[in-house]
Amino acid sequence: MAPAKFPASSATERILTLTNHLKESLNPADDIHKAKMAAPYKFQGWLGLDKDATKGKMVWQEYEPKTWTEDDVDIKITHCGICGSDLHTLRSGWGATLYPCCVGHEVAGTAVKVGKNVKHIKVGDRCGVGAQSGSCLDCEECADGKEQHCRSMIGTYNGKYPDGSKSYGGYADYCRAPGHFTVKIPDGLTLEEAAPMLCGGITTFSPLVNNGAGPGKKVGIVGVGGLGHFGLLWAKALGCDEVVAISRSTSKKEDAMKIGATKFIATEEAGWNKKNSSSLDLIVSTVSSPDMPLAGYLQLLRTNGQFIQVGAPEDNIPAFNAFALIAKGCKMGGSCIGSPKDIANMLDFAVKKQVHPWIQVRPLKDANQAVVDMEAGKARYRYVLQNEAHAAALKA
Amino acid sequence: MAPAKFPASSATERILTLTNHLKESLNPADDIHKAKMAAPYKFQGWLGLDKDATKGKMVWQEYEPKTWTEDDVDIKITHCGICGSDLHTLRSGWGATLYPCCVGHEVAGTAVKVGKNVKHIKVGDRCGVGAQSGSCLDCEECADGKEQHCRSMIGTYNGKYPDGSKSYGGYADYCRAPGHFTVKIPDGLTLEEAAPMLCGGITTFSPLVNNGAGPGKKVGIVGVGGLGHFGLLWAKALGCDEVVAISRSTSKKEDAMKIGATKFIATEEAGWNKKNSSSLDLIVSTVSSPDMPLAGYLQLLRTNGQFIQVGAPEDNIPAFNAFALIAKGCKMGGSCIGSPKDIANMLDFAVKKQVHPWIQVRPLKDANQAVVDMEAGKARYRYVLQNEAHAAALKA
Repeated sequence: MAPAKFPASSATERILTLTNHLKESLNPADDIHKAKMAAPYKFQGWLGLDKDATKGKMVWQEYEPKTWTEDDVDIKITHCGICGSDLHTLRSGWGATLYPCCVGHEVAGTAVKVGKNVKHIKVGDRCGVGAQSGSCLDCEECADGKEQHCRSMIGTYNGKYPDGSKSYGGYADYCRAPGHFTVKIPDGLTLEEAAPMLCGGITTFSPLVNNGAGPGKKVGIVGVGGLGHFGLLWAKALGCDEVVAISRSTSKKEDAMKIGATKFIATEEAGWNKKNSSSLDLIVSTVSSPDMPLAGYLQLLRTNGQFIQVGAPEDNIPAFNAFALIAKGCKMGGSCIGSPKDIANMLDFAVKKQVHPWIQVRPLKDANQAVVDMEAGKARYRYVLQNEAHAAALKA
Repeated sequence: MAPAKFPASSATERILTLTNHLKESLNPADDIHKAKMAAPYKFQGWLGLDKDATKGKMVWQEYEPKTWTEDDVDIKITHCGICGSDLHTLRSGWGATLYPCCVGHEVAGTAVKVGKNVKHIKVGDRCGVGAQSGSCLDCEECADGKEQHCRSMIGTYNGKYPDGSKSYGGYADYCRAPGHFTVKIPDGLTLEEAAPMLCGGITTFSPLVNNGAGPGKKVGIVGVGGLGHFGLLWAKALGCDEVVAISRSTSKKEDAMKIGATKFIATEEAGWNKKNSSSLDLIVSTVSSPDMPLAGYLQLLRTNGQFIQVGAPEDNIPAFNAFALIAKGCKMGGSCIGSPKDIANMLDFAVKKQVHPWIQVRPLKDANQAVVDMEAGKARYRYVLQNEAHAAALKA
């Protein structure tokens, strides 16, 4: 499937020069570096135009990013992971999408323009942005470092900033995001490995860390996919006594054991729930559908165990009898990505514990085909789009 | 509705004398006291014989209590609360009941026989037993003081002890239960007030205390009934910033505010959920049905809020979208009574904070009518059966 047009060859459109920004620099060495990074650039990427966007119908186009402020960072994108949310949004699965929409919220690259008010990133830094690109920074949640729960949460794509400008994601050349939500990628992590951690990684890291996963605990991960494979990696790296991969069939058993599972449960096998009853302290579920055997999952929990849902459901989870929670004093919860600080902690943990996601790098120009393959469940276990020119330039 | 026969007048049946037990006593004063308590007694009570038992069909009969061991206590019952569980069980609502069944698991009275191995209760002590009368005392849960989650949990009625004998509840003259599950009633609590705390009280006390209810927290209680009114009493006594009663209509609003609510939400009023969105840290739900507006309740939770179900459902709770939990990082949990230690702590708290349940004392002889009235939702808010003769004897 060939892209509509990629890359857009003309450079006649609105060019963002960084002249003013560079003038402010005082260090001559910095000046040279910044000048190198500051080649003129424009915002163009793969845009979904309607609900059929996941069917190979994204088109490469230019778009207007958020209005620049001195709180922002422009990232020259080298890599962007493909997240299930991208597909949900492209097809308006979570409600009407604001087309045109450039998805991608596992964005990694280098900073090419940094607002005056941003202190933790400088031009040239390797950095990235995850699923969130805005919040009020004023409410109780923001003050508590729980920006992801701010009621004015703005998604990295398909969102609207207070000034009315739209947010655009990372299937693109550049991404503009508030510095507050831009995290530095630590040395010791490649950009291609860091990218999918920014949403898939933190989505599974948070519910494990926040619910006591570690030595002495037996943890289950439902679903061996993009999110689930991260769950297995983290649970192993956190030192859990047991890491149990829970999947419908045994087709991914071998992979799961290599990724970090110590045990595998296939829910299509008769008696799986009874056999493994009351064996897990914590389950993180990365899948959600009205057909999921929820009552069976809950049966796996030990006394006071917890089942945390992080999947991205378009439908309801099945009805169940509350006795399933009452009898063993269990809880079912939800968890939503993590704050910028949580993400930074996760990246440091990944470096320290040498956590390496299983990724497949796909050229950005083939984004349409990659989305089609992702939809078909072919990813093992995370596709990461690579902007070939930008990645090559960085290595040069 | 007149009882079939009450009280059984003959004293010719199997009589339990306490001669052997008394012989072991060394203190003459104790001897006199024990002799006074040790009048011959037999086990007889109101038995449900089939699913129609809640329709005024319990019959007063004698039955064989659990086989006596030196770990047990015989309680001469003065009071027994009527719990929703009694009705569920009498009509086999939670599965086939082992008829004949004497329900009642809010049992209070005085110890008339105490096994040698029981150290915390002596003959003559005011004591009671709640919904649990047995566990293995050997598993991890029992070792952790979470006996209520032991997999060999034995209910105070409709249960079977390891030796095959059945458990019988408190709509009766006497109750035999293991000392481990018999709690002393502290001075400062009347037996009629203590009785309903042993199940209804602890069922609502535990989820509040275990989930941080107290100063700085805003708490909601769904349902203003036997359990719900306890929830309001505890939440107030725990010093919660706000105590919100949540009910379908406003019919119980005045009572709820007197009991301890600072605010009342009627879910039949349009927009109740939107209006009160994200206002509560913790909700304890004492009702459960497929019709409950669960999604609306969850909307009331603040970030990282918790919804704890303690109701006694015969049906599933409604299906819901997990986004309701994910977006705000909330949890839905279940809570099941409490351990003997939890109950003792609750009773001490009730004395300290002068918590007085709203009870209506009904004569034990009218148990059938009381059950019919309870089923009709007439209790305001807990019926407590009183064994008139035993209560009078205690006061004498």
